[in-house]
Amino acid sequence: MDTETRDLLPEGLEDRLPQDTAAATRITRALMDVLDSHGYDRVQPPSIEFERSLASRMAGIQTRRMVRFVDPASLRMMALRSDMTPQVGRIAVTRMKNAARPLRLAYAGQVVSLKGDGLDPTRERLQIGAELIGHAGVAAAAEVVAVAIEALQAAGATGISVDFTLPDLVDALSAGPWPLTPAQLAAVRRELDAKDAGALVQAGGAAYLPLLHATGGFVAAMDKLSALAVEGVLDGRLSALQAIAERVQAAGGDVRLTLDPTERHGFEYQSWFGFQIFAQGVQGAVARGGAYAIIGADDGAEGEAAVGFSLYPDPLITALAAQEAKRETLFLPLGHDASAAARLRAVGWRTVAAISAGDDARALGCSHRLDGLEPVRV
Amino acid sequence: MDTETRDLLPEGLEDRLPQDTAAATRITRALMDVLDSHGYDRVQPPSIEFERSLASRMAGIQTRRMVRFVDPASLRMMALRSDMTPQVGRIAVTRMKNAARPLRLAYAGQVVSLKGDGLDPTRERLQIGAELIGHAGVAAAAEVVAVAIEALQAAGATGISVDFTLPDLVDALSAGPWPLTPAQLAAVRRELDAKDAGALVQAGGAAYLPLLHATGGFVAAMDKLSALAVEGVLDGRLSALQAIAERVQAAGGDVRLTLDPTERHGFEYQSWFGFQIFAQGVQGAVARGGAYAIIGADDGAEGEAAVGFSLYPDPLITALAAQEAKRETLFLPLGHDASAAARLRAVGWRTVAAISAGDDARALGCSHRLDGLEPVRV
Repeated sequence: MDTETRDLLPEGLEDRLPQDTAAATRITRALMDVLDSHGYDRVQPPSIEFERSLASRMAGIQTRRMVRFVDPASLRMMALRSDMTPQVGRIAVTRMKNAARPLRLAYAGQVVSLKGDGLDPTRERLQIGAELIGHAGVAAAAEVVAVAIEALQAAGATGISVDFTLPDLVDALSAGPWPLTPAQLAAVRRELDAKDAGALVQAGGAAYLPLLHATGGFVAAMDKLSALAVEGVLDGRLSALQAIAERVQAAGGDVRLTLDPTERHGFEYQSWFGFQIFAQGVQGAVARGGAYAIIGADDGAEGEAAVGFSLYPDPLITALAAQEAKRETLFLPLGHDASAAARLRAVGWRTVAAISAGDDARALGCSHRLDGLEPVRV
Repeated sequence: MDTETRDLLPEGLEDRLPQDTAAATRITRALMDVLDSHGYDRVQPPSIEFERSLASRMAGIQTRRMVRFVDPASLRMMALRSDMTPQVGRIAVTRMKNAARPLRLAYAGQVVSLKGDGLDPTRERLQIGAELIGHAGVAAAAEVVAVAIEALQAAGATGISVDFTLPDLVDALSAGPWPLTPAQLAAVRRELDAKDAGALVQAGGAAYLPLLHATGGFVAAMDKLSALAVEGVLDGRLSALQAIAERVQAAGGDVRLTLDPTERHGFEYQSWFGFQIFAQGVQGAVARGGAYAIIGADDGAEGEAAVGFSLYPDPLITALAAQEAKRETLFLPLGHDASAAARLRAVGWRTVAAISAGDDARALGCSHRLDGLEPVRV
């Protein structure tokens, strides 16, 4: 057999070795413990489901980039999950539809895509998240943003900034004060994404030009948006954003707030409110969330309101792994006192027992050695 | 859309709801903490790999029951892992080939198969395991069995019994003192599996008849095997088993030992030693392990000796979930003192904050309510 074939991993997939895995385990526990402390109950959906089930729960989810295969039992298409949020939504509106609202659910698991995304070849990520189901107003959104920040800080993230967005703002403006034809709407959205002022005007979106400039530090961007005075569409959204920002700042911590009102990338199913969180030394967003609707059993209905977030901790883990403290480990020589070793483990020692006379405490990474009943430094 | 299609899960796949997930989280942490305390470093291989890579690392692994698909990047076959042990073996002999031996690695993750197995439709399981790489002798095997038992006991398993087996015993006997033709060997193996004495004799395996009776309680079965006095094949294996049993019993705990020397089911790649662990109230084996060889970069070599085990905690989680203690939770009314709530979370309280005036502490499962700065029972 071709040795290379067997030893290489496919593009975009990686092994995590001991030091990084220790960081991943610590960070995952820290994140989940914060979600749990705020009353988010963890659930565990399966890794694979019917493709339809993964795709139909929220607007805008695409199955094109999922690993798909035929279920030999039902002969229907199944897929490997690429996002756990729709699964948690499914649980909320089916098996937990009679649970009291607001329903707080948390989750953690691996998500996989068939291909990488643009320049990022990554095909598997850890996703950790929390969803508050039954409300999607200011209080719910503010809680969710504050919990996401607290979780990241507990995991060791520093230099946190939160970028707010209004994912359906352009839809709402075009349906009201700043009308656009469907063709113009698509073009205006594209040019706002590209932040291309000239092309935006050419696309018939001159009215939308001020949105391009209302971007950056939260206070200044809010001032610019407020000055637009677009009745009925902006007012409610801006006062909601203001209230969320105040709640986040009241929670303390050194958090920088920014606003990019037309940012849509990564907000496939969010409605009036979206946010991304960034941390120092970590490339890309470490969290993304917002308000959305879970499509229920009755397709005609509006769906159940929800707000939540997903953390993608892998880059944070990589950034923090180098600083992960090396743990003290106790070498147990051949013929050691087993009950002494058990007592030391019970008070937190990590032990490595000799298997043969040749085993070397230092080579095995041990900081101490059991000498009689006492640990001594090696 | 067909609502049923969207809401149902495929056969053999399940959601875990809050109470079961709380048990799963607690049990997983308890198991991993014991492995960690004995010096097993956790690693995290990816969920998907090249099919060849998953299949070629140990003898006897079949890809037939794996979810497989074509990698759009390389156009080679990939598969969803159905067993993490070969992945950990790959890490040990490639990226960690220069790490000191014995190398102790641990892992936890979901494994998936395309179809259920016989009467059990389950297609996804949690697998947790530990591998001791570089030795597969008595000391290594004894450590591994003792660690598996300690982990299960820490997770709450009771009434533990360990069933030892000698997976390659029939091969060794047929190559030595009790010769068989290749056709006879296959038939003898089959009839030993079926425990059919008559068919075993007909298949030319009369010499093997005593093995069928040397099954059950460890001491009695060992006595019967010892009485066979098959020089060179049984002697070494029996003294090794005896030493492992003594070490396991020395570790204490109320553990019952049994022996089924020809048991092969579930021991696809194990060599001289295998074991299964059972727990009270849990159907099927909760752990399975033994000695094996990791096929290295050089196919001609014997492979690196290793011994390890895999735990399949799902049935244990289900068995223990009903007893999972309900946690005390503190309801935070609208307008509560946020810093008091934060202080209480810091000392271990779990909180649920009101989102609207209609939120009800009892309905939300809260045991307490924040009254000023103090929790009071609801």
